[in-house]
Amino acid sequence: MSILVVGSVAFDGIETPSGKVDKVLGGAATYFALAASYFAPVRVVAVVGEDFSAKEEAVLQARGVDLRGLERAPGKSFFWKGEYHGDNINEAITRQTDLNVFEQFDPKIPAAYDDTEFLFLANIHPTLQAKVRKRMSGVKFVGGDTMNYWIERTPAELAETLRGVDVLLINDGEARMLGNTRSLPRAAQKVLTMGPRVLVMKHGEYGATAFFREGGLHPFRAPALPIEQVVDPTGAGDSFAGGFMGYIAAQDIMNREVFKRAMFYGGVMGSFAVEKEKPNLAPSIKRHKDRATAGETRSTPLRAGAGDASAQPGAAVPPR
Amino acid sequence: MSILVVGSVAFDGIETPSGKVDKVLGGAATYFALAASYFAPVRVVAVVGEDFSAKEEAVLQARGVDLRGLERAPGKSFFWKGEYHGDNINEAITRQTDLNVFEQFDPKIPAAYDDTEFLFLANIHPTLQAKVRKRMSGVKFVGGDTMNYWIERTPAELAETLRGVDVLLINDGEARMLGNTRSLPRAAQKVLTMGPRVLVMKHGEYGATAFFREGGLHPFRAPALPIEQVVDPTGAGDSFAGGFMGYIAAQDIMNREVFKRAMFYGGVMGSFAVEKEKPNLAPSIKRHKDRATAGETRSTPLRAGAGDASAQPGAAVPPR
Repeated sequence: MSILVVGSVAFDGIETPSGKVDKVLGGAATYFALAASYFAPVRVVAVVGEDFSAKEEAVLQARGVDLRGLERAPGKSFFWKGEYHGDNINEAITRQTDLNVFEQFDPKIPAAYDDTEFLFLANIHPTLQAKVRKRMSGVKFVGGDTMNYWIERTPAELAETLRGVDVLLINDGEARMLGNTRSLPRAAQKVLTMGPRVLVMKHGEYGATAFFREGGLHPFRAPALPIEQVVDPTGAGDSFAGGFMGYIAAQDIMNREVFKRAMFYGGVMGSFAVEKEKPNLAPSIKRHKDRATAGETRSTPLRAGAGDASAQPGAAVPPR
Repeated sequence: MSILVVGSVAFDGIETPSGKVDKVLGGAATYFALAASYFAPVRVVAVVGEDFSAKEEAVLQARGVDLRGLERAPGKSFFWKGEYHGDNINEAITRQTDLNVFEQFDPKIPAAYDDTEFLFLANIHPTLQAKVRKRMSGVKFVGGDTMNYWIERTPAELAETLRGVDVLLINDGEARMLGNTRSLPRAAQKVLTMGPRVLVMKHGEYGATAFFREGGLHPFRAPALPIEQVVDPTGAGDSFAGGFMGYIAAQDIMNREVFKRAMFYGGVMGSFAVEKEKPNLAPSIKRHKDRATAGETRSTPLRAGAGDASAQPGAAVPPR
């Protein structure tokens, strides 16, 4: 079943201890779409500028991503520039943010997207998220993301958006800010009164925890195994969300077990995102069939040794 | 099978957002012994001063801890004073460290301890650790701890100690310093050439990862579930070590599965340590029988809902 993601398709300038790129394909919707494309058909609604070329388009097209909702506007694409340093490779220091064509972004959903069943509202202005949510009122399931900036500055608009979100994926700091408490379980309890029935808190290198509204919180923590070298963390959270939503969209049923399993698929896709220079999700990964799918030929594993993580220092799934 | 712990039995002065205590029973060996006592008989070798009263002794005795190796010396007991603040409740700010009688500590092992099979070298000067290790050359299994101070200042002495340790339990920062790299798996690889065949890296609220020398690292991460309110983190690491070693000592066999399971027992004992004011491990916990132990009557669970962590916000074991 197809997934529609609305969010940024952009350019990034990134400096890490491993190297420097001036302008490379990036954006939340890009990372989400690439990761989710390994599980389900993905559609994108975003805006890019005149600097967005066939080369960037080809990266998404190579993964079969539907770009009919990718609007072209006069001017430049959204641009973000950041640095990561060795003492805390996981935290970006933002050096530049040029909204460019994104400043006037008014999401237009092609009629061809009307049969979409899964919607992901990547981190953009909550008013735009709410607008897309309303337009796509027929979807079966909605995931969402947000950030400190919107939590602080547009709480009313964000509250409106959250009422239409089934699963919210944010990190510890964002959860604490949104729930207005240091305690992660208490923050979760609060957030789960705001709309989402599932909250996924992302803990970076340590994994993520899902909290379920129904039956009282029910935290489920999915560990991530240590990565030997984090080269560039850009897009890790969006890749997690793509793996998570993609896996759910690909299942025949949707229940707590599916959500739990989706946490590990999210972790795996996040781990791919951080291990190499950007963008790196497209060319080199192949998905093998789930073990449960009997009788089908296995292709090259999604990650070498993913079925036996204990033999793989970098594997992001736990050993059985 | 009995466990001998050598380390500090001390007094702590602790200030947290929840309150303040001027002088309360503390010390690494104390927390270790209390936690391990739920699994196996525990023996202590340590030194205390004249201010150590029957009241403190009673806390350990109530848990059946063997204090024949607790030496009394003229002067005051080791005293540590620290604070925790709301913005990072997990990190102690040390305000005072008075070694007192500990300065001249020369561990004396009673002959009655000669049949000990498990030894834990809590965080003290590596030369003392090595001395005890040598004296207890007949033990079956040795666990150890250390800290940044010894890694930086006594690397040669620490190297000697590590050669006699089977499992080392340290946190991420200590592992990075000891392995001289930011990468946790690379640090583990390095540490596992120094003596230990298992390295347990403690990640605080996120759980811990075990790395195994044999067969090439084999990381196993045991998540800890979020605690609703961390009241006082003092002793969490030592309580983890006590649960971990205690569980291993209580098993008939010792293999990788036992180590993995021990990680969760460590996490559970660590979670108890942080949830209340100090000291809090003694009075209120009861251990129920493992599910695997058929035919035995279950007493009150070690933690309410520990068998069904999904229903328990604060439970430190993952749902099945």
